[in-house]
Order: sequence, then structure tokens, then C-alpha cells
Amino acid sequence: MSNPTCAIIIIGNEILSGRTQDANIQFIARRAAERGLNLAEIRVIPDIPARIIATVNELRAAFDLVFTTGGIGPTHDDITSECIAAAFGMPWEIHQPTFDLMQARMGAEAFNTARQRMATMPRGAVPIENAISLAPGFSIGNVHVMAGVPRIMQAMFMALEPSLPQGTPIIMRTVHGIGVMEGSIAAGLSAIQDSFSGIDLGSYPFRRGAEGGVAIVAKGTDITALDAAIAQASALIAAQKITPIPGEPG
Amino acid sequence: MSNPTCAIIIIGNEILSGRTQDANIQFIARRAAERGLNLAEIRVIPDIPARIIATVNELRAAFDLVFTTGGIGPTHDDITSECIAAAFGMPWEIHQPTFDLMQARMGAEAFNTARQRMATMPRGAVPIENAISLAPGFSIGNVHVMAGVPRIMQAMFMALEPSLPQGTPIIMRTVHGIGVMEGSIAAGLSAIQDSFSGIDLGSYPFRRGAEGGVAIVAKGTDITALDAAIAQASALIAAQKITPIPGEPG
Repeated sequence: MSNPTCAIIIIGNEILSGRTQDANIQFIARRAAERGLNLAEIRVIPDIPARIIATVNELRAAFDLVFTTGGIGPTHDDITSECIAAAFGMPWEIHQPTFDLMQARMGAEAFNTARQRMATMPRGAVPIENAISLAPGFSIGNVHVMAGVPRIMQAMFMALEPSLPQGTPIIMRTVHGIGVMEGSIAAGLSAIQDSFSGIDLGSYPFRRGAEGGVAIVAKGTDITALDAAIAQASALIAAQKITPIPGEPG
Repeated sequence: MSNPTCAIIIIGNEILSGRTQDANIQFIARRAAERGLNLAEIRVIPDIPARIIATVNELRAAFDLVFTTGGIGPTHDDITSECIAAAFGMPWEIHQPTFDLMQARMGAEAFNTARQRMATMPRGAVPIENAISLAPGFSIGNVHVMAGVPRIMQAMFMALEPSLPQGTPIIMRTVHGIGVMEGSIAAGLSAIQDSFSGIDLGSYPFRRGAEGGVAIVAKGTDITALDAAIAQASALIAAQKITPIPGEPG
């Protein structure tokens, strides 16, 4: 695919500790696919400056776009913003329009030193406004820095989206084979994949209650090819005699 | 922390496409914490051989243990096993005991070429048996290769666990401040963090229905220090004229 590439950096000890179930990856992944951005890698890293700086610098060089989530609040463990400044070699300084806006809305007393951190950004950063939180995320270069709280992250992403580069939307087609086992259709699937080089054909065992089988997913940008591949996968599934094999893995 | 370090590599286009919500990270993260393994990084990468090989080699050098999930089934997109062999520079060959076991259980006809792939491993690999699937995962060096299907991955992890190195269990203590805003307690929290260098103090806004506030999480291996830090955080919250809810461990 010649679509722009992107990566996500989830900055957050709470995912690594298992305290919190990630709720941001799937949202960004789906929006990226719709916009024609090829999501190439996701990393979850801890709130450690050297790790944040190195990861941001590695991925912004490797991919067209980087989205980060987490670590832009007012507390001591919110260190993403100053680390992004360090990664870009820029001063970390008050963003005056954001400072003025937040102070006006919160009042001078509430807008204490901790909250003023949220109006502090790498020089040259462009705020990402959102309808939920007064404190914006920001973009600098090809890095887009968003909150970790899902509803705020989502609002920021929606605000950011119109300014992002665009590729050909990545589309998925799926066919489910109830009672079909991967090992029985593997050779047929491989042949289908071989005849459609422009698409990714994936095979995923599933179980829903007592029912199980395999989901065949075709992913790509060429709808005609996707539909043709899925038609072949459907025929492959229809040709199966459903006879359970003991010990078939997922 | 002097605990052993570990990383997770999620190999799967289905997470990157947004088709599937990850269901493996939190399970491994929690078990790792209980075993005293410091989960230092998670990566989600696509089913591309060069990416798998490079990521495995980078992370197995950087961390004490690496867990991979996904890509060990019988279909053409299941390429993890041969990529691990390539990463270790080992031949990828039939593991005879596994081959014999699978063939005996499935019967020679069902145990076709595709399913035989699941009995093929890097030379020197040790199978990770599990109660759900006949096809094992495997360990080679410090890399532990498991299925992507959550219930199979979990069974493999449980089978593997007793053989893993052990550290001091990582414990969490939490206190919730209903109605408390992060920006109001940030300075106080920072002071608490400064006086407990051995623990990680995290601050996480939360909302449950109409109710919201902040969760203060203390994480570390020294229970006395955790309890002391949480007592101070509770006092900080109480000083906000809000009644704290003593949090459940973990």
C-alpha cells in the first residue's frame, strides 16, 4: 500500500501494570483505516523520560505520522509534553493563547501551577482543541499528542482528523465459516492469498457461546479485489464438510 | 526495581486494523506483576517477517523475558514460528514428539500439511502444552511463543508460568477521590511521590456513570511504603473536603 503510515505510542504505566484495559487502540486503528492511514506499529511504554524521548524519535523517523496518548494532565506523572519537547530539541514553554484561555475559563485561583503545565508545550506546537476538556493536546511536526482518557482522546482525534494526510480508505470484508476449522481450509486460503497480492487475507478462529468457526478477513484498498477474494473464500467454506477434528487449535 | 524485566509482542494484523479489541495484554500484565516481572514494553506489529524478526531480536536482547502472542496456527498468515527460528538463526523443523502426538490424536488424514506446520518449531524449542489446544506454543531462549486466541494463550501462560523466573510481586494500592480534580491535588501528590522513591504514584481521572474523580494508585514491591504513601494520598484527598473511598488492592 502506498498509503501514509502511522504508529501509536501509548504512554502509561496503568496499561503495563494491568490496572487498566486499553480503550484507545481500537478507536484510533479504525479511524486510521477509514482515513487511509496504514497503522504499522503500536507501542506501550512507561512514564520514563528516556523511554518516551527515544521511542518518539525512533517512530517519528520511521513513520509518516505518530499519535501519542496519555501523560498530558496536571500531575507529576504527566511528563509526555516536556518529553516531546526534548525529543524535538525545542524549549518547553507557556503557549500564551492556551494559557490565557484556560485562565479566563478557570479563574486565576484555580489555574494553579499544576494546571498551568497543561498550557505549556514545545515551542512551535499547535494545540488540538476538543469539546470536553479545556486543556488541549498538540501537534508538533508529524507527532500528535493526545490525552489518555478515552472520551477526551476521541474528541481530540476528531478535531485533529481533518488536518491529517489522507490515503485510500482501507476496507475489510469478512466471511464467517460456522463449524469450519482453520486447518481444513488452510491450503485453499493460501492459494487465494497467492492470487490476490494486493490484499491481506487473514484467518481468525472465533467462538461465540457454543458456536465456533473461522472468520476470513480480506483487507485492502481495492474493493473489486476484496469482493473477489471473499467470494472465493465463501466458496471454499461452502465446499467444506463440517466434521469436527479433536484438538484443533486457534 | 531489581525484578526481572519482560516485554510482550502482539503479532497480529487484526489488532492494527481495529478489527479485534486486544484481550491479551491485561491478562499477561497482571500475571507478570503477580510473579514479580516488570513489564517494560508492549509492541503490536503486523504479520511481516522482517518486522517480526527484528522486533524479537531487539526485545530479547533488551529484556529478560519476551512473550509473543499470535500467528502460530495452521494458515498462511501464521508465520510467527518460522520467524522466531530465523531470529535465532536456527532451522525450523518438525518437533517429533509433538508431530507424533498430534497425528495420533487427529488421525493421519486430518493431520494435513497445514496442521503439520503447528508441529514445526525452531530447533531446540521446548513446547508449551495447554489443556485446550493440541498444538503447543513453545519456548526458545528467553522468548515464549503463545497463541493469539485468548483462552488458549491463557492456558499456555498458566502452563508456562511455573518455569518462569520470579521477582518480588508488584502490588498496587488505590484510593479514589470522588469529585476530586487532579489539578487540585497535583502539588500534594508530587510531594508524596518525592518522599517515596521506591514506589510509582500514578493519578488517573475516572468517571463511572454520573460520578467522577481521581484514582491515586501506588505501585511497588514494598507493602509498608505503599500503605504509607496511600495513607498520605488519602489524607490529601480528605483535605479536599471529600470523603475518600479506600480502594481495593490491585
